[in-house]
Amino acid sequence: MKIEKLTRKGFAAFGDVIELAGAKHYGINQGFAERYDDLCNVDVIEGGAVKVSLFDVKPRPHPICIDLMERHPLGSQAFYPLQDEDWLVLVCGAPKDENSYRCFRATGKQGINYARNTWHFPLLVFAPSRFIIVDRKGPGNNLEEVMLEKALFLAP
Amino acid sequence: MKIEKLTRKGFAAFGDVIELAGAKHYGINQGFAERYDDLCNVDVIEGGAVKVSLFDVKPRPHPICIDLMERHPLGSQAFYPLQDEDWLVLVCGAPKDENSYRCFRATGKQGINYARNTWHFPLLVFAPSRFIIVDRKGPGNNLEEVMLEKALFLAP
Repeated sequence: MKIEKLTRKGFAAFGDVIELAGAKHYGINQGFAERYDDLCNVDVIEGGAVKVSLFDVKPRPHPICIDLMERHPLGSQAFYPLQDEDWLVLVCGAPKDENSYRCFRATGKQGINYARNTWHFPLLVFAPSRFIIVDRKGPGNNLEEVMLEKALFLAP
Repeated sequence: MKIEKLTRKGFAAFGDVIELAGAKHYGINQGFAERYDDLCNVDVIEGGAVKVSLFDVKPRPHPICIDLMERHPLGSQAFYPLQDEDWLVLVCGAPKDENSYRCFRATGKQGINYARNTWHFPLLVFAPSRFIIVDRKGPGNNLEEVMLEKALFLAP
């Protein structure tokens, strides 16, 4: 699988890229801060609310075995890295369509927000890493997982 | 003004501390991630929704002149630092009551969430810094500011 640079345009079918470049911004706090405003679509449905969490993430062995994909039918899910290190974002249009998989290399200054129902693999990092997450809490089953009959292997 | 260490207990009257210590956590993603879950009360009212933003913040000259305080009547406001550097959190119970002011020193691994209607000063940093913010968007006036007749000076 080719690894692509993460850009807003390339990722648009899957959600938002959370980054300064291209964002609407303006000065606040008597000029002591610049606000890059409203960078992703926080989308929670069916009686849900928004929660903020932290993830500690470990790297997986290489080549990375991609044997399941997941999605969240009731809410978007945003991730922003807390270290300035590259990481990977693996998504697909349909889990059983091998040609629909896309892998993006994000920098440590790029977060992403999976749109509701975007198929994705869990976080992929090159070293132990921490992320802040904005996603949904509330009633209902917000996790759908598909095991792949034939695993894919990613060698970044 | 005394500068206190930021703790959940000390800050409880003003909002949440977003940190790993003391948080509910559990393993996810086949053991490759630990989730520290639902770390603050994201509270948006009157037809509002949640947005995610980034702030670039500059340090202020020392001693820091505290001449206004602000609060958000329609929503909470969470800040998490994107560098591992200490920063300051200045709040008060009532802007005109000098004795109600509290200043907390946060580490670079602590964020905070101002509860709705908590009086606070803008972000205070020791060097140019970046934060991720989770707060409210939507109709209504969500900013109340009070100019202080007599400025306070903070020399951290």
